[in-house]
Amino acid sequence: MKLCEFLGIKYPIIQAGMVWAATSPLAIAVSKNGGLGTIGAGSMSEEELRDQIRQVKDATDKPFAVNIPIMYGNAETQIKIAIEEKVPVVITSAGNPKLFTPVLKDHGIKVFHVVSSVKFAKKAFEAGVDVIIAEGTEAGGHNGREGIATFPLLRAILSELGDVPVVAAGGIADGWGFAAALMAGASGIQMGTRFVATSECEAHPAFKDAIVKAKDQDTVLIGGSVMAPTRVIRNRFADEVLKAEREGKSAEEIGLMFRGRSRLGIREGDLENGSLMAGQSVALINEILPVKEVINRIVNEALLAARSFNIQNLFCSH
Amino acid sequence: MKLCEFLGIKYPIIQAGMVWAATSPLAIAVSKNGGLGTIGAGSMSEEELRDQIRQVKDATDKPFAVNIPIMYGNAETQIKIAIEEKVPVVITSAGNPKLFTPVLKDHGIKVFHVVSSVKFAKKAFEAGVDVIIAEGTEAGGHNGREGIATFPLLRAILSELGDVPVVAAGGIADGWGFAAALMAGASGIQMGTRFVATSECEAHPAFKDAIVKAKDQDTVLIGGSVMAPTRVIRNRFADEVLKAEREGKSAEEIGLMFRGRSRLGIREGDLENGSLMAGQSVALINEILPVKEVINRIVNEALLAARSFNIQNLFCSH
Repeated sequence: MKLCEFLGIKYPIIQAGMVWAATSPLAIAVSKNGGLGTIGAGSMSEEELRDQIRQVKDATDKPFAVNIPIMYGNAETQIKIAIEEKVPVVITSAGNPKLFTPVLKDHGIKVFHVVSSVKFAKKAFEAGVDVIIAEGTEAGGHNGREGIATFPLLRAILSELGDVPVVAAGGIADGWGFAAALMAGASGIQMGTRFVATSECEAHPAFKDAIVKAKDQDTVLIGGSVMAPTRVIRNRFADEVLKAEREGKSAEEIGLMFRGRSRLGIREGDLENGSLMAGQSVALINEILPVKEVINRIVNEALLAARSFNIQNLFCSH
Repeated sequence: MKLCEFLGIKYPIIQAGMVWAATSPLAIAVSKNGGLGTIGAGSMSEEELRDQIRQVKDATDKPFAVNIPIMYGNAETQIKIAIEEKVPVVITSAGNPKLFTPVLKDHGIKVFHVVSSVKFAKKAFEAGVDVIIAEGTEAGGHNGREGIATFPLLRAILSELGDVPVVAAGGIADGWGFAAALMAGASGIQMGTRFVATSECEAHPAFKDAIVKAKDQDTVLIGGSVMAPTRVIRNRFADEVLKAEREGKSAEEIGLMFRGRSRLGIREGDLENGSLMAGQSVALINEILPVKEVINRIVNEALLAARSFNIQNLFCSH
């Protein structure tokens, strides 16, 4: 599948629907600049979500998406709003794709579903999902339990399921990674952390700075011993969760520790006590940039990588 | 750097030095078929190592490597043997590259060093290492503590250190992954698990079958709470280690659990009680093949991927 044609966009670059960070200004900027902007419904009330969708529709005629984590109690209402508002694309995650794919497709909405294993990829296509987003363990925020990295996950899905449309997500933030994912057979990429560190994103400036400062070793998976893990920049909160895990605290106790923490970190900029959801791509992000610049750079880097690539030249006749 | 020219080989494909599996028949087959075969010294006595090296030299004039984990007590002796036997390439891992790089280079030996983070990559080049092998969390066996996946690790090293020679290792077992790594700027790839599942490898047939059967979700990192983790195919032994970790057992106690287990799994084929070291690439390995066929396939797939790659075609003018 040619993802750009399917979606009616310029570049096969999807902005992830990060809670507390993927609001309308970011989605608008991404969609206006040739990618697919996404509103992250996970942290939104009904009114907020409807309002956010309308802001995007008022600002641009370009396609955009809403990401709805379907395990939450309000998922059904959010799906209903997406249908009423004629959202072009819904990205579902964290739940069974059979639940809402049929009703969304009946209303002419394109459905993407985030998966972390070949098994879930199969189930998503069986449920009628148009495109899957294969998210590796490198990715920020909520992560699959399986811990499979982006490239082996992508290759395993393509080699088991054949020529299906798969977007690669996790660990990609520059044009070489973008071109590599396309070379490995991805139909496009999804980026989250890279789009948080943009001028348009409504995340707190201190959180954006933390992404810029963080190095390759600075993210960690937390909560994984009792639930699906979350990748964050290591801080006091992360250390407290890891300590609670070592002490064998229950899933309920550890779950409670997370309450309110992503808002605290991402929107309020509390770098010690907040959950600073970010992926391993922090290592590749050294500047807060306007979205236009992020997209232009990654596209130009990918074109440069592709133009200078000559695999025969890398082999010898010894 | 053009790795093939530097090494005098045909394809920039390095066979990893897996304990109990990387013995002379495998190294000979890889080197004869255009890659860089490697003897894994980690599990060998002095006599065995010398004998293995001589077997390779007797069988082929092609270059080959010896992998020496430098944290073990016999590393100094093994380095001495490599020098005496005029081994063309030494791959050091699991330790400080300053220790032996100068003496190896004084004897005209090319030095590669395995790293799991940008920090260790910097240290390796400062120590005079020729090429680093960036090994991501996808890889089988002993793993870095940092948990960084292969592609973000590769990109982070190249973007921080500039145009340095980096071999990508971890999660790669087919030509699309090979081509993607080269596109992302790698000078070559290293594969371990793929080469275990070959007719020439002296690993136990039952272990090779376990690799063929294993799916994307079937490997797990064990021991990581108290030491550098090891990636294995999940079995009774792995579950026992994970249980001991949950119970807060000491590093010493858990370390003892590993004693003799890799030989038991890899050479004796005890699929329940052995340590079945393998990477996430198990998902991509569906057949035991001769080495010649593994190399021909991956090269042909990579050439096919590269020939059919046209990045402009993946963009639209919307």
